[in-house]
This record gives sequence, structure tokens and C-alpha cells, in this order.
Amino acid sequence: MNGQGEERTAFEIGVVVPKRAVKERDESFDCVEVLVEEFKQAGLTVEKVIGIADEFIKLAAPLETLGRAAAELQIKKPTHIGMDLQFEWDEVEAFVRQPDGSLFSWWERFRCFNHLIYGIVNKRNSAVSLKFDGKEFHWELGESLLKRLEAEGIVKQVFPLHDEIKRKQLLRNWALNWWDFTSQPIDDIYSYFGTKVATYFAFLGMYARWMLFPAALGIMLQLVDLGSSQSMMLPIFFISIILWAVMFFQFWKRKNAALLARWQISYSVVADPGCKVLGLDWSSLQSPVELVKKVGTDRAREKEVFQRAEWFGHMMRFRNDVIIFLTIICLQLPFELAYAHLYEITRPDALKFGLTAVYLLAIQYFTKIGGKISVKLIKHESNESTEYRADSLVYKVFGLYFMQSYIGVFYHILLHRDFKTLRQVLIQRLIVSLVLENLMENSLPYLKYSYRKYGVRHKKRHEKGSSTGKIQFTSRVEKEYLKPSYSASIGEELEDGLFDDFLELALQFGMIMMFACAFPLAFAFAALNNVTEIRADALKLLAMLKRPVPRAAATIGAWLNIFQFLIIMSICTNCVLLVCLYDVEGKWKIEPGLAAILIMEHVLLLIKFGFSRFVPEEPAWVRANRMKNATHAQHMCSKQLLRSISGGEKMILGGGKKTE
Amino acid sequence: MNGQGEERTAFEIGVVVPKRAVKERDESFDCVEVLVEEFKQAGLTVEKVIGIADEFIKLAAPLETLGRAAAELQIKKPTHIGMDLQFEWDEVEAFVRQPDGSLFSWWERFRCFNHLIYGIVNKRNSAVSLKFDGKEFHWELGESLLKRLEAEGIVKQVFPLHDEIKRKQLLRNWALNWWDFTSQPIDDIYSYFGTKVATYFAFLGMYARWMLFPAALGIMLQLVDLGSSQSMMLPIFFISIILWAVMFFQFWKRKNAALLARWQISYSVVADPGCKVLGLDWSSLQSPVELVKKVGTDRAREKEVFQRAEWFGHMMRFRNDVIIFLTIICLQLPFELAYAHLYEITRPDALKFGLTAVYLLAIQYFTKIGGKISVKLIKHESNESTEYRADSLVYKVFGLYFMQSYIGVFYHILLHRDFKTLRQVLIQRLIVSLVLENLMENSLPYLKYSYRKYGVRHKKRHEKGSSTGKIQFTSRVEKEYLKPSYSASIGEELEDGLFDDFLELALQFGMIMMFACAFPLAFAFAALNNVTEIRADALKLLAMLKRPVPRAAATIGAWLNIFQFLIIMSICTNCVLLVCLYDVEGKWKIEPGLAAILIMEHVLLLIKFGFSRFVPEEPAWVRANRMKNATHAQHMCSKQLLRSISGGEKMILGGGKKTE
Repeated sequence: MNGQGEERTAFEIGVVVPKRAVKERDESFDCVEVLVEEFKQAGLTVEKVIGIADEFIKLAAPLETLGRAAAELQIKKPTHIGMDLQFEWDEVEAFVRQPDGSLFSWWERFRCFNHLIYGIVNKRNSAVSLKFDGKEFHWELGESLLKRLEAEGIVKQVFPLHDEIKRKQLLRNWALNWWDFTSQPIDDIYSYFGTKVATYFAFLGMYARWMLFPAALGIMLQLVDLGSSQSMMLPIFFISIILWAVMFFQFWKRKNAALLARWQISYSVVADPGCKVLGLDWSSLQSPVELVKKVGTDRAREKEVFQRAEWFGHMMRFRNDVIIFLTIICLQLPFELAYAHLYEITRPDALKFGLTAVYLLAIQYFTKIGGKISVKLIKHESNESTEYRADSLVYKVFGLYFMQSYIGVFYHILLHRDFKTLRQVLIQRLIVSLVLENLMENSLPYLKYSYRKYGVRHKKRHEKGSSTGKIQFTSRVEKEYLKPSYSASIGEELEDGLFDDFLELALQFGMIMMFACAFPLAFAFAALNNVTEIRADALKLLAMLKRPVPRAAATIGAWLNIFQFLIIMSICTNCVLLVCLYDVEGKWKIEPGLAAILIMEHVLLLIKFGFSRFVPEEPAWVRANRMKNATHAQHMCSKQLLRSISGGEKMILGGGKKTE
Repeated sequence: MNGQGEERTAFEIGVVVPKRAVKERDESFDCVEVLVEEFKQAGLTVEKVIGIADEFIKLAAPLETLGRAAAELQIKKPTHIGMDLQFEWDEVEAFVRQPDGSLFSWWERFRCFNHLIYGIVNKRNSAVSLKFDGKEFHWELGESLLKRLEAEGIVKQVFPLHDEIKRKQLLRNWALNWWDFTSQPIDDIYSYFGTKVATYFAFLGMYARWMLFPAALGIMLQLVDLGSSQSMMLPIFFISIILWAVMFFQFWKRKNAALLARWQISYSVVADPGCKVLGLDWSSLQSPVELVKKVGTDRAREKEVFQRAEWFGHMMRFRNDVIIFLTIICLQLPFELAYAHLYEITRPDALKFGLTAVYLLAIQYFTKIGGKISVKLIKHESNESTEYRADSLVYKVFGLYFMQSYIGVFYHILLHRDFKTLRQVLIQRLIVSLVLENLMENSLPYLKYSYRKYGVRHKKRHEKGSSTGKIQFTSRVEKEYLKPSYSASIGEELEDGLFDDFLELALQFGMIMMFACAFPLAFAFAALNNVTEIRADALKLLAMLKRPVPRAAATIGAWLNIFQFLIIMSICTNCVLLVCLYDVEGKWKIEPGLAAILIMEHVLLLIKFGFSRFVPEEPAWVRANRMKNATHAQHMCSKQLLRSISGGEKMILGGGKKTE
């Protein structure tokens, strides 16, 4: 596969403009023509496609154009000596290639594209007047053309395009390759979708593979009758499940580290995402580094400023967490309990059905509101990068879903010791997630796509005035444009569709782990579900949706902590389950005093283990100092080193380039 | 203080040789004269002191000699651009000075001294024959002279010397400065004793300061009578103590990070001590890096070799831990329980006293055996550096002490609910540690010193044949030689006296925390003890002992995890205490089934949180790759960078040099 990435420069970005009714006589004033001309001058390869309802500008970038943009962006890339250095086009040989042989990863290419197309500003002597369908407006000096056109509503959308050859390859080798079971071509996924999506699929694959063990155990427990030792089996099953989960996540962390090493992403960058993405404009908004610059170079003052900024940040985050927590406890908890209680006491099934329908509608609405409130709160936090902010959102929203999904089940266990209903609910939910969600995930985007297609056809027919003849969508780019994008059900600004996919996994994990002792067979359902999930998600990404915008993060982020939290929860809930199961005679009465002490103990243990997340080990000023120094060092040695690497070291270090 | 360190080169190393009865006529064959000559040729300043029983060679090194040694050792030092680079004598201006203005830290100087004096080899054409008191032996080609002389028993000891001026300064400002309460001149301690000792005192100071809060709370609880709400106070006290402890250790981590930043020790080095100390010979003995070199550069093979070495190491460590754990459970636990039970049932006080005496003798013996077994086991582990090995030893030996100190107390609580005896035991132990241990710590070394002095005098008198006239020790170096060294009670090879000091703190912490609810006043005792401890330990180090050999580690290492473990234990034990205290009527019977489930829950929670220590997140091969790359990078840019820093950047970055 070596070098293949270089030979072909695919069209990777699409810009959508409406079809013009009137052609300008003088093309130099037509804003679309000007845009195309500027794109060409920026070194991009441009192809114009006239669709049925819109016009599409497809953009590709030759390697040199990308290289120049990368140098302007001061992108840091790993070199053959293992250090991340600023990219320089002249010293291109010094930099390590991607596993597929191309120089830039998809995330880097996307950043470069963004820099190139939004970096087109008016460099002429005066403002240029542009026309579109008769409307005239001015392109001011130093203004970004694309931003202006977006503001005027002329550029409808800028979106990443699928690369048809690679897409088909992946479709064949990955999405439709059911016989591969849980193994996937992770490197190809990485080079096509970027780190975050590839990490998700690597996690999903490993999760599905590891799930086979508890699934087998669960089936055995269900089928084999051990007679007198049967009662001992449940605690043993519980212990092995917990050990399994603990080991799985520790080994996942190792696997993740190995993936990062394979993709040549340095560990420190992942730990401090804020440092890699400093080039983007949204990250440096409120950072204390700015404040320090104003204050000057006095070190004591600097330390003080940092500490104040750090603690203020903590307080804000703490306040927000408290708000969300109280909202969940005071508003959501009573609501969920009320529903669970009503469901329990309602007798006619029709009424039950109606109640559930009302409930389902209500929670849809509530979750949306919760998501919006969370996004608003997070905006006031001074998180260091979008990935941090996305993590903060994930924690908050997961709190909502956690209550929603499990509180009713807890109600059945704790108050009514009603294991039959519990098992019914579990089976019901697992089957729903197995069949319905996998179906929905793929059919919903398809329905949306069909609906939009219909809308366009309908409009077109209306314009033409005739209703005869089927209108075919001939251009692929227009079809892609009509496909829905990979977006989260809440807060599109911070998270993409990965939120929903991870949420599904986390809720499933919680469901099977927390009630493992009540229904060991659940693991088998989950295993089946996960194996299906891999191909269903792959199909969705490749065939049903627009190509997702790449994201920098290369770990599963906040979700790891959520999974860990669910393990702890499941230790506690399963103990309660075991007490309920074995204490059939109700003799093991727990006195209120004892219960209070036990609850206090558990809360304190939780605080002990949770507190280290609240106060970081390294003060902000120490970290800032370290990063400032590192940046300084890299800046100084960058050029000198690059020359020596690309000159002399190529021969010696060439071996490191080969694809693994 | 700037530059002061440079002006004076103090004598820092002492070499002890016996006084010779016969002077060789030809000095060129006298091995001591040859040694002195070679020291002088190596660039060291030499002073010979004739003591009463021995002869002493005092060594000092001019800065240039140290610099050359540092360059030969390829010591990495922080530069003004914040990157650690290999030391070069020509570019000395590029490197950051110590807080006291000297170029090298005490640890670096000690390494250089070691390199210089043990690096004296026979470079002549043939073996040299040397004489000592008539005995003749050969100094072979390429052999280290000092090692040979040590093997022949001529060089009795090589030990670091106190710097009289700085020692007196510290004695005045620190050890005898009782009015400073808990504040100490940490930077001076760092530059005189090195990082590890300074970290200990920084921890001790912070611990003593923080301890005032629970001490005040404990006294309040004891003195104030709140009437009806009195029964609520104990749980509140318990919760605040736990929160206090959790916060203390988190803030200690921050303080430690800040100290590292002040001493210009880079964070990554601390995390990977193996990387900094690679220059020393003991660290590369069994490392997989060596194995890989033999295998070749094939990456897949390399990964495999690393993984096998990593897992083999884990298995060895796991096996050793299991051995120690089983030994403690199967041998020590019954023994301790037997003692506690016998103590309980023995009636006459005289018998009780006799029993305790026998017990105390027995545990002294057992602990020694345990320590020796641990050291032996650890030798089979492939830990990456001595500090790792020392940590491994600390964990194992602490297990012994933990059982020894607390199991009897647990026995009193759990089986007999005997709070009176418990309180008596606690008061007894705290007073013992407050008065006796602080006294012992200082008087024991003094007694040892006096005894040795007496021995020398006695021998001298015997030789002279007369018993008249007091023999005065005139030379300071001889007095120092007779002082005991700062060594651990177990396993001198891996740990020094810090082990005993930390052990004292940890046992005290466990005592006051685990039984906080039974005896809140204990915190006041502990606070008093710790404030005394600071000055007592300082006095011991400065006046009673030889100057300790500096150690590289700059964190409290394994002890942090031990303290954290004690917090968790204390959450659980205090809950048990509360149950015992409030359940006076014995109504809260816990059924065996419930107890089993609760125990299972706690064990699982412990596994969940402990497992991540067993399997590291980053596979060994990933880490090795990263380190190899980093080393490579630093090697490449080292020289180029140094020149540019020491040339141009001095003016700009000069501000960073000032002492903080």
C-alpha cells in the first residue's frame, strides 16, 4: 500500500451553492465564479458539478498545497527521530508517513482544507462588489470570502466528501464482511475516518470479543443444573463478571496505548489535547496564558494568576455539576419514581400502554432540555479544548440517561423485590436495543435521505410544471449532500454521532452488569448485539451518512470513566440483589442505624476515589511552565533538526516507515 | 546567595585507610601514596588527615573536574529552554543553576565523585605492584584502584563528608530553630541532603501543619459537652477526618509537583526513574533493552520480546507478593492473635509484663527475618531501578508491620468490644512514640558514637601501654567516621534511614485514623509528636549521623500508596467501630449470609481499585519505543541547541535564573 495515498488526490471537500437562475454576463462579478477562481489560486483542484437543485464545488488538494497550509498552521508532526516537530515543506522526508503511506492524516488534511478555504481574504486594493442572482454585496478588505458567502446564505454548506474508491474498499472489507466476526481493518478505518471513530470501532471490536466469555458463562449458568451447589453459582458468576470487567478495561487502556503508538500519536499530546489544538481559534479564547501575557513576566504574579484561574475553573465546573446533580435528584428522580409506581399499580394493559407512551414522549423532551441546559452551562466553564468540553457534556448528559434507564429497575428490586418484572424489563430492553436500535440506526438516516430526495424532486417538478418522468440523481455529490450528517441527539456543537453510539454501549453495559445476578443470560443477548453493532455502525457510517468531520481525540475519553463508574455501581447493586435473592425469608433485616453507617461508608469510599478527579495532581502553573518550556525547545530546535533528519538519517531510519 | 556555591569547594568525600605502622621507603610503591597521587591526577583536591586510629583522605572537586565527569557520565540537566540535555562543559552557561546558585546538585556531585574515584584504572603498560604494611599485591591493567584496595581491606570506607559551614547554618536555621514551628528552609535542605530527604521533610512539615485541624477538632470533641446532640458528633468527626485525609494527600501531590518544578526536576523523569539512572551500572543488568539488541531490529520480534519480559516480570512480582501475603496470613496472623489472646486472659500483671517482653523480643527477630526474605525475593524481580526495588521492599515490609501494629487492636474491638483496653493501648503507643521514639532516635546514634569512640581510645591506650591522659579526637573527619550512618532497620542495601522515619509516620497515621472514632484525642498527640519530630529528625541528620548518601527519587514513592491504603482501611474500620459503639444493646446482629456478601463487596471494590496497579496502562514496548525515540532526539539536538542557548539566549532567559 506504500505511496498509494500520494498517487491519487481525491476530492475531499464539497461546497454547496444554489443553482443560479440568471447567469451573470460578466463572470468576474459572479460570486460563485470568483470563489472558484480563488480556490484555484489557493492551489486547490476544483470540479464543478451541476446537480438537480444545487450546484456543487468539489475540492481536492495536491500534496504541495496541503504541505504549505500545514506549514502555515505550524502543525506538529512526528519525525523519524520520534520527536514532534513543526512541519516544513522543504524537509518533508523527515516526517513519518501514515500507516497507509500518505503524508497527512485525514484530520490534518481536514485542518489544512479548512485553513485554505476559510483563509481566502480580499487582498486587493479595495472592496470587491459581487453579485448573486441579481443581489449585490461587497467583499470587504481582509474579509474571508467563504464566511461572507455563508453569512449571505449563498454557500449552503461545506462538508467532507466520501472518497468513493476507499469507501467501496471499506464497504467490502469491513461493513459487509460479516464473516470476520469481530476483527476489523482498524488502520484503514483510521486513515479514512480519523482517530476518534477508529478508536470507537477498536473498542467495540474488543468489547464484543471479550463479551463472549461472560456470555458463555451466562448460558452455562442458565442451562446446567448443578443440584445442591446451584446456590453457590450466582456469587461465583458475579465475582467472575466483575473481574472480567476490571480486566477488560485495564487491557483496553493498554490496547489504546498500543494503537496510539501504531498511529504515531505521541502520548503526551493525548494527555494534553489543549496543546495540540492550540492552533484553532476556539481554544485560546479564555485561557490563562492570555491573561499572563498581559500581566508580564513576573514569576510570582504569574503563579498567582494561574492558581486563581485554575481554582475559578474548578469552582465553575463544581457549581455546574452540583446544579445538574440537584436537578436530576430533585426533578428527574421523583418523575421516574412516579412513573415506575404508576406502572406498577395500573391494572388494565391498555392504560399501561398509554402511560408508557406518554412517558416515552416526556423523556424525549426532557432529555433534549437537559442536553441544552448542559451545553449552556458548559459554555461558562473554561475547559481547555473542545474535547474537554465534550467530555464535560458527556458526564452531565449521562447522568440524565443513567437515572432514566435504571431508576425504574431499581424501584422494582428494592421496594418490591419483584424479580419477575425485573427480568421482563431486562429482556424487553435488550431485545429492543438488539433489534429496534440496530434497525433504527440504519433505517432512520435512510428515511431522512429519501424524504429529502423526495423534497428536491417535488420542488423540481413544481418548477418544471410537469409531473411526468422520474428525476434521477446522477451526481454522487448531490446524493451525499442529501444524506444526514453523523450528529449527536443532543448538543450538536460539542459531540457527533459517536455520543449516541457510546451511550448505547454504556447503557447496555450498565444494564447487563448492574443486574447480572438477576439475569445472567443478558450477556448472551449483549454479545449478539455487539457483533451486529459493529457491522451496523460500519454500514451506517459508510453508506447512510455523510462522511463525518474528523476529531483529534484518540481515546474513548469520558466514557472510560463512565464505564468504570458502572463497574463500581454494579458491585454494589449486585450485592443488594444477592441479599434480596438469598434472604427469601426476610430475616436479614437491616436496622436503620446499620444502614446509615453502611451508606456513609460507601459514600466516603466514593469520595476517596473520586476526589482525585476534582483536584489535579499537577498545579496549573507547573503544567503551563512545562508546556511553555517544551514549546520553546521545540521551536528552537525544529529547523536545525529537520534538516539533519531529512538529509542524513533517511537511510538509517527508513526501516521505521514500513506499514505494520 | 547567588554564586556562593561556586566560590568555595568544600571537602565532600572521605576515604578511610588504616594508619600504617611502617612507612615505605619508596613512596611510589606505597598504595595510599599512589592513591593520593592518582586522585590528584584526576583533578581532585586532596587533604590528608592523620587521625588517632586511621588515616583520612578528604576529597574536594573543583567545578571543572566535576563538569568533565558529568560530561563523561552524560548526565542530563535542565537548560534555560526547559529541555533536559546532556551536559557539556563548554556550554556550561546553557544549564540552569540550582536554587542555591551552584551548578550541580548534591546528587549529581556525588555521582561525579563516584565516577571520578572509582574510574581510576591502571593505564600504565604493565601491572603495578603496590605495598601496604609490608604486604604486596598487584594492581592489574585496567583495574579500578579503589575497588582493588577495598577488596584488599585497605580502604575501609568511602563516605560523604559534612560540609561544616553549611551544616552549622542548617543547624542554626533549621534543627534548633524551634520557633519556626512547621516551616523549614526546604531549598537549603534540598541542596545539602538531596531530593529524597528534602521531600521527606517537606511532607513531614505539611503533615504536621495539616494535623492541627483534626487535633483541634479532637480536643473540642473531648472537652465540649453538647448534650443530646453528642451522639451525632462522632459520625461527623469521622466524616471530616476522612475528608481531611483525602484532601491532604491530594494537596500533597500538588505540593510535590510544585517542589519538582522549583528544583527543576522534570516530571517525566520522576515518572520513569529508570530513564534518568540508566547511566549507573545496576539498572541495565536485566533490562529487556539488552535482550532486544541481541534479537535485532525486527519490530514484531521486538514487541514480542518486550511483552514476554513484561509479563514475566509481572508474574515474578505477583508470585513474590503472594508468598509474602500468605506468610503474613498463615504465620504472623496466628502468632499475633495468640499473643493478643494470651494477654487478654493472663491475670497477674507480672506475667503480663513477661509475656510482653518475650513478644517484643520475638517480633524484633521476626521483622528482621521478614526483611531479609523480602530483600532476597526482590532480587529475583526485574524492577527497573533501585528506587522501584526499594518501593517493592517497602510494600512487603509494611505488610509485616501493619499486622504487627494493628492486629492486636482489631482483636480487642471485634471480639471483645473492649473500648477501654483499646483506648489504653492507643494512649500507651502514642506516648511511647512521642517520648521514647524521639528520644531513642537521637540518643541511640549518640550512644553508638560514644561506644565507638571508647573502643578507639581503649585500643589506642592498649597500644601505647599507658592508661594516663585523655585522648582527644582532634580531627573532625575522624569523629564523622565514627558516627553511625543513616541506615534502615531492615535491608540496608535498598533503603536508608528514611524507611524508618516514614514507617513511623505511616504507623502513627494508621493508628490515629483507623481508630479515630474510638479515641479522637489521638490527633492532638500526633500533632504534638509531628512538630517535635521535625526538629528531632533534623538534629539527628545534622549532628548525630554521617551525611547520608543522596538519592535520586523526588517523591515519597511507595509510602503515598500506603497512606492511601490506610485511608481506605480507616473508612472500613471506623464504620465497624461506629456499629460497635452505637449498637450497645447488640440488636444489630449481622447474619452470616449478609456478612459474607458485605465482605465480598469490599474485596471486589478493593480489587477494582487495586488492579490498575498490577497491569500498567502503557505496554512496555510502547514505553520503550517512546523512550528510545526521546533519547535519540535529545542526542541529536543536544550539541546544536546548547551552543545556541549559551550564546544568544543568555540575555533573554537570564531572568529565569533567579532564586525563588
